[in-house]
Amino acid sequence: MIKLTRKLEFSAAHFYHNPKFSAEENRRIFGKCNNPHGHGHNYVLEVTVAGEPDPETGMILDLNELKEILEREVMVRFDHRHLNRDVPELADKIPTCEEIAAVLWRILESRIDPKIRDGRLDHIRLYESPDLFVDCARNGR
Amino acid sequence: MIKLTRKLEFSAAHFYHNPKFSAEENRRIFGKCNNPHGHGHNYVLEVTVAGEPDPETGMILDLNELKEILEREVMVRFDHRHLNRDVPELADKIPTCEEIAAVLWRILESRIDPKIRDGRLDHIRLYESPDLFVDCARNGR
Amino acid sequence: MIKLTRKLEFSAAHFYHNPKFSAEENRRIFGKCNNPHGHGHNYVLEVTVAGEPDPETGMILDLNELKEILEREVMVRFDHRHLNRDVPELADKIPTCEEIAAVLWRILESRIDPKIRDGRLDHIRLYESPDLFVDCARNGR
Amino acid sequence: MIKLTRKLEFSAAHFYHNPKFSAEENRRIFGKCNNPHGHGHNYVLEVTVAGEPDPETGMILDLNELKEILEREVMVRFDHRHLNRDVPELADKIPTCEEIAAVLWRILESRIDPKIRDGRLDHIRLYESPDLFVDCARNGR
Amino acid sequence: MIKLTRKLEFSAAHFYHNPKFSAEENRRIFGKCNNPHGHGHNYVLEVTVAGEPDPETGMILDLNELKEILEREVMVRFDHRHLNRDVPELADKIPTCEEIAAVLWRILESRIDPKIRDGRLDHIRLYESPDLFVDCARNGR
Amino acid sequence: MIKLTRKLEFSAAHFYHNPKFSAEENRRIFGKCNNPHGHGHNYVLEVTVAGEPDPETGMILDLNELKEILEREVMVRFDHRHLNRDVPELADKIPTCEEIAAVLWRILESRIDPKIRDGRLDHIRLYESPDLFVDCARNGR
Repeated sequence: MIKLTRKLEFSAAHFYHNPKFSAEENRRIFGKCNNPHGHGHNYVLEVTVAGEPDPETGMILDLNELKEILEREVMVRFDHRHLNRDVPELADKIPTCEEIAAVLWRILESRIDPKIRDGRLDHIRLYESPDLFVDCARNGR
Repeated sequence: MIKLTRKLEFSAAHFYHNPKFSAEENRRIFGKCNNPHGHGHNYVLEVTVAGEPDPETGMILDLNELKEILEREVMVRFDHRHLNRDVPELADKIPTCEEIAAVLWRILESRIDPKIRDGRLDHIRLYESPDLFVDCARNGR
Repeated sequence: MIKLTRKLEFSAAHFYHNPKFSAEENRRIFGKCNNPHGHGHNYVLEVTVAGEPDPETGMILDLNELKEILEREVMVRFDHRHLNRDVPELADKIPTCEEIAAVLWRILESRIDPKIRDGRLDHIRLYESPDLFVDCARNGR
Repeated sequence: MIKLTRKLEFSAAHFYHNPKFSAEENRRIFGKCNNPHGHGHNYVLEVTVAGEPDPETGMILDLNELKEILEREVMVRFDHRHLNRDVPELADKIPTCEEIAAVLWRILESRIDPKIRDGRLDHIRLYESPDLFVDCARNGR
Repeated sequence: MIKLTRKLEFSAAHFYHNPKFSAEENRRIFGKCNNPHGHGHNYVLEVTVAGEPDPETGMILDLNELKEILEREVMVRFDHRHLNRDVPELADKIPTCEEIAAVLWRILESRIDPKIRDGRLDHIRLYESPDLFVDCARNGR
Repeated sequence: MIKLTRKLEFSAAHFYHNPKFSAEENRRIFGKCNNPHGHGHNYVLEVTVAGEPDPETGMILDLNELKEILEREVMVRFDHRHLNRDVPELADKIPTCEEIAAVLWRILESRIDPKIRDGRLDHIRLYESPDLFVDCARNGR
């Protein structure tokens, strides 16, 4: 089995605030991320599929089909968006890198798996910055 | 003469909207950047000073002094901020990479020049993303 | 004056062979680059314009206009091409990084300069690999 | 068990064409990659071995021995080559990143495993560009 | 299960010399690394924890707690240090990337595991240079 | 005029200590860099030549000749060395990035200029880390 990874980038704003916490707790726990006007990042997403290359095309999946899924499900919904305000799946969560990656995993798994003959989405990696990233994989590998 | 460059990173949100334009013009001219909730970037700033190394220390300027200036003037004011709402110098501008760099240049020039014996701030480079960056220099070089 | 740089990537094949040289001279001078089947690179091109930001948009030039020029003049003509065989401007040259950059400069200067109010193409940088790159600038700066 | 990875780069040309497909099908399926003159990439290969460090040298394997294998098996055979025309193992395949990685895996496994005491080749990663890469591992991990 | 990785950098000197070997053997086996005055690297360390995000904070672990551990256990002990002379755990070892990573794993495992509710240190990666790195993981995965 | 840049990397150790200063002054001014056992870096050097491409080869200078100079003058003398102890030109200096770059400039200028027809060494850039670098150029440009 072989794995293929495509990388893409999107820019988004977010901030951290839990209404269950007091103002003071929010500041202590979330620090600068609690600024209510928000701040932002160039997120980098790596999407990895696993499968067997089709001997007629040499490809695990058609990269154009993957590109269309990523455009429709990631770029349109997350790029140049405010994650707290524009992404319904994150509306009631703290949009940490962990939570964004979990949402992206659920969206992509259902869209990509049907497109791969003898394969499936294997894992995703989401960079919030060059120094901080999160991995989500099937069965927690 | 020798030039020394220190690189740092800050995360900020912004959006583009000119109240003189109609809603339709704002969308046409600024595209996805017009989303009023904002989006964001990991900005990377390179600050370059030019001068002669002090023969006793081998240094153009004390890197700890430079670090303090960059912490106080860049990190405190721009990092984890919303550029339209939290940075007064940008309140009445479109916070493009060009305008942010011009504001940073004016702030840093007045702070750094007095700290360099036989030298001065030479230029700055501001990356909005790995694929887009702006340079500001003394006398437009 | 402020400078704005946009980076893009294209993939191309090439090889080095001067018909004036003997087979032995071609091998000695061009080494592995003389392989007549060709080899290739992911070229990275940085295009830098200089000008004054328009106070109404904060921009030196409309990035969508720049993107269209780069798509039409660089991507369509150089991406996924064999530089010796598919690019007429290079047909009678050795397509080194130096010569490719000189051709790109001449193409882009005539297309970009009319699009910038109070500005112009300032320089370009072409990476053949992360370890080798060429700069072309107006007046050899 | 500890894993050690060495990264190297080679430049090669390729194109995609399946003689079983019509000209129209080749263009539709392979797009710009179907250009018969070829195009190219700076491929980056990561080779990972797993084992126990020798307590006398602190090393899983002698890096000079690994370098010799990579020079002889990768650089001499793939660098500055046209993958369709110069690499026999790929002559009857579509030289996608998936297929090239599979060929490299088979070559390297047989050469590297005998050189590692208490260890073996663990996996390889092949980047076709910074945005697209393939992983091959023992038993599909 | 989700994994979170934080990257940090430290600068250190080292050299390779085994007193059991003759001077000639040391030179042959360790090459340029045997220079007794030492040489050095910018090491990059990636520390990966695995766990479940706390639904109230969206976080696997408090990044400030992680930062404190990394400051105290990595930066204070390894940054701007000579690994052979300043790090007791490496005093009687050849400080290869493999051995340094094994030492870092043992230090970090005992410090990080108690800080993660429903989680633990998963693996670390240590880059000696962009072209050479080592991975250590629980159970050799 | 066109500029060509070749990048290379070397690993070296150094520390900062001025015998004219007291122990306390050395610690205050040089901080962690004053550790007498030394620490180290992966230095990255960019060497830029300016000239006109030879129409018969498309090249400003023969890259093999440049490689030989860089091997002999940079790699042999600086790679896997302790800059304070192994490099005579730095023996009585504080080996900051500024001073190392100045030494490299003087060495390379005299070696490279005679090799370029209609050209010369234009500037060098030396990275001590990804976040700190120095530029040296002819006439301080």
